[in-house]
Amino acid sequence: MRTLFHYPLCPYSRKIRMLLAEKNLEFSLQFEPVWRKRPEFLDINPAGKVPVLIDHENQVIMDSGVISEYLEEAYPGQNFIGKAIAARAETRRIVAWFDDVFFNEVTKQIVFEKTMKRQFSLGEPNSNVIREGISYMHQHFDYLSWLIERRHWVAGETFSLADMAGAAHISTLDYINHVPWEEYPEIKEWYSRIKCRPSFRGLLNDQVPGIIPPVHYWDLDF
Amino acid sequence: MRTLFHYPLCPYSRKIRMLLAEKNLEFSLQFEPVWRKRPEFLDINPAGKVPVLIDHENQVIMDSGVISEYLEEAYPGQNFIGKAIAARAETRRIVAWFDDVFFNEVTKQIVFEKTMKRQFSLGEPNSNVIREGISYMHQHFDYLSWLIERRHWVAGETFSLADMAGAAHISTLDYINHVPWEEYPEIKEWYSRIKCRPSFRGLLNDQVPGIIPPVHYWDLDF
Repeated sequence: MRTLFHYPLCPYSRKIRMLLAEKNLEFSLQFEPVWRKRPEFLDINPAGKVPVLIDHENQVIMDSGVISEYLEEAYPGQNFIGKAIAARAETRRIVAWFDDVFFNEVTKQIVFEKTMKRQFSLGEPNSNVIREGISYMHQHFDYLSWLIERRHWVAGETFSLADMAGAAHISTLDYINHVPWEEYPEIKEWYSRIKCRPSFRGLLNDQVPGIIPPVHYWDLDF
Repeated sequence: MRTLFHYPLCPYSRKIRMLLAEKNLEFSLQFEPVWRKRPEFLDINPAGKVPVLIDHENQVIMDSGVISEYLEEAYPGQNFIGKAIAARAETRRIVAWFDDVFFNEVTKQIVFEKTMKRQFSLGEPNSNVIREGISYMHQHFDYLSWLIERRHWVAGETFSLADMAGAAHISTLDYINHVPWEEYPEIKEWYSRIKCRPSFRGLLNDQVPGIIPPVHYWDLDF
């Protein structure tokens, strides 16, 4: 059976969970508390990170960027990176923007700081870090709104891996009720289109001990 | 004319410079002092990072991972990611390991700390950070030696993007004379094979104001 190691609010794992579901590839989820550095897991991925995919014939694939390229090549039925070379570069550019810039400046500074930092034994949440994350979030949401106003989906006219990457990060912010939806109607409309997809349902069912998401988190018509 | 925006000790730019040269694609180098945040450059890449490639017909590609996938697709003549799907995943895994784990734990903690931190106005080098980087470097060099003992090149039997990524990071450490070559004969032998390639020559000619590399840095038979 295909297995994905993950933990619930990991945006990189969320992106791959959506991609697997969009490709109709069945998989079982294996919760991996990476902060515990289990030797059995470090044997699988010495870098100690999720997601890690164990595909058929025990093929082990790690790093969400590597996994998504692998899934596109191994299961080419429906294509989520794009067809033309320039379109593929644009999808990958936006995925990298979410997974590198947006993650480091927003997801990490807000979601990681508020929910995971204690688990990783890295001390208490720092309100200056969270404030800086919120300021970056507004800056990046302005850019995201600008993109969505001009395109139906973030990387172009078709739903792609870039939308999954974006929704993965934003869904973790939404879980802790940190998305100012009313200020960004374009983003809200785009996100609600993604939220309605069957591939998103698994993400909405995640439960993080001790953190109850706002009611609208589950609501498909929020 | 194809143009690559870079700065001399940027390992991501170095990887792309090698890849362009290996593919025999002519390009001009444009020095970009990213720490100055030039508005003209931010118009090209709002993320403010190098490398950025301006390809023919003014196609703008940014992020070294996106650029390498783009170059492989746009100029498929010689392939540097691999042929079989599993081999491609292995090349990408090692590229990601160098560009994410090795960069954050070693290149950034040693090279960035010692040479770039002042330029970015982020204060003075911190010797604790450098010490931690050196400790990680030994740990990661042990793994790299283990890989090279088992394979001719780091990702398998053929020279690939993974070797370019590795040589890009290690060459920046070597520029500031921070590689304990005598302790790692396998790595030294592998690196000297890469150093002899014509694609590496441009990197060896880089000059960073105020930092003179050790004599062996240029020596192909060090």
